[in-house]
Amino acid sequence: MYTDRHKKILSHLSGRGIDGLIVNAGPSLTYFTGLHFHLSERPVVFILATGRTPLIILPELERLKLDGCRFPVDSFTYPDNPDTWPERFREAGAHLDMNHKRFGIEPGQLRLLEYNLITRGDATLVLEDGSPEISKCRAIKDGSEIAKMERAVSIAQDSLTATLPIIKPGATEQEIGAELVIQLLRHGSAPNLPFSPIVSSGPNGANPHAKPSQRRLESGDLLIIDWGATWQDYTSDLTRTFAVGPVSEEAKRIHELVLRANEAGRNTVAPGVACGEVDRAARSVITQAGYGERFRHRTGHGLGMECHEEPYIHGANRQPLETGMTFTVEPGIYFEGEFGVRIEDDVVVTEDGGRSLSNISRSLINVCV
Amino acid sequence: MYTDRHKKILSHLSGRGIDGLIVNAGPSLTYFTGLHFHLSERPVVFILATGRTPLIILPELERLKLDGCRFPVDSFTYPDNPDTWPERFREAGAHLDMNHKRFGIEPGQLRLLEYNLITRGDATLVLEDGSPEISKCRAIKDGSEIAKMERAVSIAQDSLTATLPIIKPGATEQEIGAELVIQLLRHGSAPNLPFSPIVSSGPNGANPHAKPSQRRLESGDLLIIDWGATWQDYTSDLTRTFAVGPVSEEAKRIHELVLRANEAGRNTVAPGVACGEVDRAARSVITQAGYGERFRHRTGHGLGMECHEEPYIHGANRQPLETGMTFTVEPGIYFEGEFGVRIEDDVVVTEDGGRSLSNISRSLINVCV
Repeated sequence: MYTDRHKKILSHLSGRGIDGLIVNAGPSLTYFTGLHFHLSERPVVFILATGRTPLIILPELERLKLDGCRFPVDSFTYPDNPDTWPERFREAGAHLDMNHKRFGIEPGQLRLLEYNLITRGDATLVLEDGSPEISKCRAIKDGSEIAKMERAVSIAQDSLTATLPIIKPGATEQEIGAELVIQLLRHGSAPNLPFSPIVSSGPNGANPHAKPSQRRLESGDLLIIDWGATWQDYTSDLTRTFAVGPVSEEAKRIHELVLRANEAGRNTVAPGVACGEVDRAARSVITQAGYGERFRHRTGHGLGMECHEEPYIHGANRQPLETGMTFTVEPGIYFEGEFGVRIEDDVVVTEDGGRSLSNISRSLINVCV
Repeated sequence: MYTDRHKKILSHLSGRGIDGLIVNAGPSLTYFTGLHFHLSERPVVFILATGRTPLIILPELERLKLDGCRFPVDSFTYPDNPDTWPERFREAGAHLDMNHKRFGIEPGQLRLLEYNLITRGDATLVLEDGSPEISKCRAIKDGSEIAKMERAVSIAQDSLTATLPIIKPGATEQEIGAELVIQLLRHGSAPNLPFSPIVSSGPNGANPHAKPSQRRLESGDLLIIDWGATWQDYTSDLTRTFAVGPVSEEAKRIHELVLRANEAGRNTVAPGVACGEVDRAARSVITQAGYGERFRHRTGHGLGMECHEEPYIHGANRQPLETGMTFTVEPGIYFEGEFGVRIEDDVVVTEDGGRSLSNISRSLINVCV
């Protein structure tokens, strides 16, 4: 599998005259190697060069991780003293004969730390943005990747169901967030959640990226919960909005509107449709009702090994959807100082349309009933 | 507090003729602003320029977070379409009159994404490594920071104690890891743990950075648990080694040796002592017993808002310790294919020596008794 992925990325890159790939610790490195390294002060770099054995530069104390590598790999390890690192990177570069070559890198992942070590002492090495080619590989999920995402979705849905009993007036957002995390772990999520759950009640719901606070739920609140799980490196990312006791007619109307926008977005998904079309489908429902200014963010983002990855679902994105792409559809409406509503599903592009991986009820459930 | 931190970092940087500071989403941005942003595909950049109001560039949908900012700040927001971002960065640079100026950045945090946006269109802007000056601020903790770290340590210790009852022959490393995470959250840790706990038994203990596996504990195993908590942005990082039932005399002897190395390291801590001296004190105990080759990593690392930060405790580091610095002391001995032992404490440099923030028993506790 990894060798196939190497062939594919090198083939994509060679189409632009690029000779190889350089990725640092992060999801792309895991995608191309099956190995897990944290982004830390110790740089880990994987290099694929056409016609060469793949190469990895890593700390001496991580060397045992290579026992789990399922393809031949050359390794250069370094000790703890950072003064020794440039020389090891130089040796690795010489081993691969990298001078006068062009390599693709990821500007959204590669730090100046790795950039400086890779380029130091070799002004002839050219680094170019290889993100589009990496995305071309990672954005199209195969069956086993989609199965992992479905598991991440079902863990998330079961965890929310298990958390519902404590969601009552008087509970704080932080208490609900902590219980939801515990349930995610109990239901099998990996400890590295895609993100800390957002639990935002009443006026806090107007901030799409609110952190759970000490605010206690009050009867009449709308409550946004935005949460996800990780299963074997793949993530889920869902949002539902609840009623805490009886809520205003306006709140119900806005919820209904967001639900229609969510449906309109999901129903537009099909191979060949531009990402921007999905955004426009969801957005036009809200704009036509007069709330366009209050839908302050894009309709969604790609989902996979990262919680935010390609394709991004915003109006200016003309990229056509392809079978196997997975992303969120998450329209929202926000009233500053009052409340917010967001409904988010994870969808996969199928041969004849789109399919939601998530199916937990989207209705405005009253948690007090 | 934040204004004081701004003055201090600008004063440190001006000593090297640097006019300001640029940090992206991450712990340093939180340290200097009190604001929390995830490192994501949307860049967030905070800029401090001498004589100017601090400035932040951030996504439109994060704008509400600025309501929590406790100092005057100018903000430049951008919408979801990445094509619009370079222009906003250019406007921010023009607002601060950044051309022909020198700014300090963090190569270990700043990605090419932010680097390219910051430098695009202004070849006269000079970016230099400002990490040493940032570390000079962040490495010296004040009383309130140390109090937060003590709380992170006590949460970690209490969580391990609560997990002990399930640590028995037959339990898998992953089960123990999951329960420990649940206990960390129940005891008040923030959900963004400093790292996923390492639970490595028997031969897995020989890998210092092992991931918890499906291996079941067996009687006679040594068991390494390396875990930590987060409290109000500050972390703890501890390791203890346990006996699963009766273990070999050799295992007991190695544990005793590592304990003596841990004590030797901690007892060396004092203001003015070089970091390398702490490493040598711990290492010499192990080397003199003939196991120097098996202590494969540095003795420790700084600890604070990041789980790994300055000062790094390795032999070549001549940096002198200063009152208020906090770091780990964590010698270990590893026998590939057999077992490992590591004992890790978190220490703070005091005016007359060092003090361990952690005090949970370091003895070779038999979890079956």
